[in-house]
Amino acid sequence: MVQRYKAILKYDGTKFSGFQLQAPRLRTVQGVIEKALVKMSKGERIVVFGASRTDAGVHALGQVIHFDYPVNLDPQKMKFALNSLMPLDVEFIDVQKVDEEFHARFSAHEKTYMYRVDRGRFVDPFKRFYTTHYPYPMDLSRVKTALKDVVGTHDFTSFAASGGQATNKVRTITQAEVEENVKDNEITFYFTGDAFLYNQVRIMLGVLLEIGSQKREIHDFLRLYEVKDRKEARWTAPASGLYLKEVHYV
Amino acid sequence: MVQRYKAILKYDGTKFSGFQLQAPRLRTVQGVIEKALVKMSKGERIVVFGASRTDAGVHALGQVIHFDYPVNLDPQKMKFALNSLMPLDVEFIDVQKVDEEFHARFSAHEKTYMYRVDRGRFVDPFKRFYTTHYPYPMDLSRVKTALKDVVGTHDFTSFAASGGQATNKVRTITQAEVEENVKDNEITFYFTGDAFLYNQVRIMLGVLLEIGSQKREIHDFLRLYEVKDRKEARWTAPASGLYLKEVHYV
Repeated sequence: MVQRYKAILKYDGTKFSGFQLQAPRLRTVQGVIEKALVKMSKGERIVVFGASRTDAGVHALGQVIHFDYPVNLDPQKMKFALNSLMPLDVEFIDVQKVDEEFHARFSAHEKTYMYRVDRGRFVDPFKRFYTTHYPYPMDLSRVKTALKDVVGTHDFTSFAASGGQATNKVRTITQAEVEENVKDNEITFYFTGDAFLYNQVRIMLGVLLEIGSQKREIHDFLRLYEVKDRKEARWTAPASGLYLKEVHYV
Repeated sequence: MVQRYKAILKYDGTKFSGFQLQAPRLRTVQGVIEKALVKMSKGERIVVFGASRTDAGVHALGQVIHFDYPVNLDPQKMKFALNSLMPLDVEFIDVQKVDEEFHARFSAHEKTYMYRVDRGRFVDPFKRFYTTHYPYPMDLSRVKTALKDVVGTHDFTSFAASGGQATNKVRTITQAEVEENVKDNEITFYFTGDAFLYNQVRIMLGVLLEIGSQKREIHDFLRLYEVKDRKEARWTAPASGLYLKEVHYV
């Protein structure tokens, strides 16, 4: 009897060519999980569906997947078996049985992404793969004001990388916050929304950091919503600072 | 006019074959620094002396080096120049001019090493290179009692790897502590002493963890000081958990 499982996992994206299966020689998160499931099910091919197709170098603290397994296994045993077969850069946090209505991507109500920015003068050796280094002057109160322009329903055409497939680029962001972590000399951003366009968080980050460094007007988001031009948003902040933090289901 | 400089640096030891220069094809911390200094001094070979010869995979938060530079440069400029030439896994924290009496290794009064142990059930993807994973049961009060046997002057023959050159294996440890970090599910050890034998901290860690897991008598250190037999101490805890935290000078 086929049983559907939902799983929550954590991974260090540094050595992955992203979540999604691509050319067979590329190492992907989906690839290593499907390989483990084939082994567990004695050769049966099992397809893994992920809530978010994180890019190369992007991390996850709470990616969610689902898959249909040919045998009804205890979720704790499933979690243990998967963790035994995972490389050390992937860890299963939780495994649950779900009914066949559940879909990791389509049932997701909202997702929360986190973005870590290191403010040190030089690159910290221990943070090089886990933050984005931005040593330039930063007025956090400007960033906080700009984040108020991010919350809400907007046309994010200026913030969508050309690789995306979405035609309608209106999205709703329900949380856009920044926290200062003085001890680690970092600032951390949190964005929650119903769906995000390809590279949207990283492109928004580039604009936010430039607003903080006085390289852009404080309300430049409002202009960017109007002009609908990716080139106006300029750079895409690095993958290393980005984490898929949580996927919310109703 | 030759000027001696003292520098404090941080490095992620994961991708280094240790601190000390070895076969030319091996990547070492000393090697990357000497290469940068050759570049800065336009071809002059400058020898770097380190306070501690950390092994492959061992990290540093406060390694200290000294070297003689052919030109009298402002220490801030020296720090900036070195950081511009460093790979991203090495960061210079501080550079100072010192007089020629100063020697990074021989002037050192004491060193503090830190050792991070992750207590999670499975390997955390973000900690795999920066902690040692030890998921077994652990009675921290036993470890704390054992640490009292570590402080003091003892014959550490049982805790010296065969690669070391020291003949006298009596050393003095002035601090041996453990802290519990409940939030990160870690325990962190701190050891301060005048000098440490080759692999001494890692071999002591192996014994301490076994004491915590009831695999050894609580006062097994006292027996090990007597038997003077490396084999009795058994395993060497992994390099990934070890950090050279600080070098103390009078």
